[in-house]
Amino acid sequence: MRRYALRIEYSGCGFAGWQRQRGQSTVQQCLEDALRTLDPEVPSVVGAGRTDSGVHATGQVAHCDLQKAWNPDRLIAALNGLLRPFPIAVLVAAPVDDSFSARFSAVERTYQYLIAVRQAPLTLLRDIHWHVRGQLDAEAMAKGAEHLVGRHDFTTFRSVHCQSKSPIKSLDELKVETGPLNRGYKIVITARARSFLHRQVRSIVGTLERVGSGALHPEEVKDALERRDRSACGPVAPPQGLCLSSVRYDLDPFE
Amino acid sequence: MRRYALRIEYSGCGFAGWQRQRGQSTVQQCLEDALRTLDPEVPSVVGAGRTDSGVHATGQVAHCDLQKAWNPDRLIAALNGLLRPFPIAVLVAAPVDDSFSARFSAVERTYQYLIAVRQAPLTLLRDIHWHVRGQLDAEAMAKGAEHLVGRHDFTTFRSVHCQSKSPIKSLDELKVETGPLNRGYKIVITARARSFLHRQVRSIVGTLERVGSGALHPEEVKDALERRDRSACGPVAPPQGLCLSSVRYDLDPFE
Repeated sequence: MRRYALRIEYSGCGFAGWQRQRGQSTVQQCLEDALRTLDPEVPSVVGAGRTDSGVHATGQVAHCDLQKAWNPDRLIAALNGLLRPFPIAVLVAAPVDDSFSARFSAVERTYQYLIAVRQAPLTLLRDIHWHVRGQLDAEAMAKGAEHLVGRHDFTTFRSVHCQSKSPIKSLDELKVETGPLNRGYKIVITARARSFLHRQVRSIVGTLERVGSGALHPEEVKDALERRDRSACGPVAPPQGLCLSSVRYDLDPFE
Repeated sequence: MRRYALRIEYSGCGFAGWQRQRGQSTVQQCLEDALRTLDPEVPSVVGAGRTDSGVHATGQVAHCDLQKAWNPDRLIAALNGLLRPFPIAVLVAAPVDDSFSARFSAVERTYQYLIAVRQAPLTLLRDIHWHVRGQLDAEAMAKGAEHLVGRHDFTTFRSVHCQSKSPIKSLDELKVETGPLNRGYKIVITARARSFLHRQVRSIVGTLERVGSGALHPEEVKDALERRDRSACGPVAPPQGLCLSSVRYDLDPFE
């Protein structure tokens, strides 16, 4: 068996997320089906981030084990040919050591969340933004975000279905920036950590949106965190605004 | 009758273009259907640019005549509510003088064309870029583009179905820029003129792509223009890369 790391981009639209689920179309399933056309013996593919239904990726990393050695460019071309009906693209492939795990070797994951703030509905950007009609105060959101950076018990910002053993995580960065948008503006939230709890980013974004709208004071984000109570969390932000943008390893498999 | 100017954004995907056509879904048709729900007597809507099938707009301008006076914000809200099933959004509405014509009063139109250059297929950006796999030399494209700026007979870059009386147009700007793209780069072509011939921008972009790929020398763009012969044009670039980004009037109706 030869192990390969793959860097993958996909649109989450139309998929029930990354992870294989019986009777559902998932990214992992499409990728495994493509790999098994090349090599019927391929074991399960392992991904760095188990993105939810509707969540996109521009820098997902996965690893797979193939019976024979492949030239990376040929492997990419063969996979992309087989994946053609789906909005999934293999961007890079590289042979890696058997000890490499896309999931367990990852030392940092970065997610980006896009909010489009304007009165009119979205058209071209509909599938990759959360559309918010009222004004959002990005400075207040940034102040609220500061309370979440660092090592904390994130029980408030964790799905009740989260399978992580511990709710304690270190959030290394939570940045709130603004950008241009036709007849409005966009808010870009970047979250960086070694790993995340289930729905953590969308739970945080949903709470920060409440701060931006004025429903919560930035200080109340701190209170919500300290309550360690799921009911203190704002509404979970919708999936289409979220994108897994990069995964970092101590030894970059694609260098 | 009260005349209103509307600034409109839409995704061209799924539409047979702007202009009403029997048995086809078009942007003009959807807009007129929405307006006639508000006011059954509404005459045809007039647009500044008759975008082709698949072509997008972020700054299309149209005018319509309504029996009664509307508060612009209510008009926008009513129209966007009715247009909800479609990727069309009315961004701004403003009462204008009866002499205003979205089409004939326009003094400048700007189109933007996006090319995504990378080996892997596109996923999230599929609907708004032309995907080109080989490398493109943006500098060579910019050199080729210089020959087209100014007042010329654009017969080479005009669809055989073009209904314009004259093939002579003044192209005020034709800019070629590069930008970032995940595992590749994008080329942004901006074309600005009082008015354009049918398929002029896509014909020009298709020819410039041939220059970027090395199939044509930048000087050959000049030769192609001077031949005034449609067969001297490169393949017409696909519609999804094109977007009508703005329309200018001597007196801005939305100011």
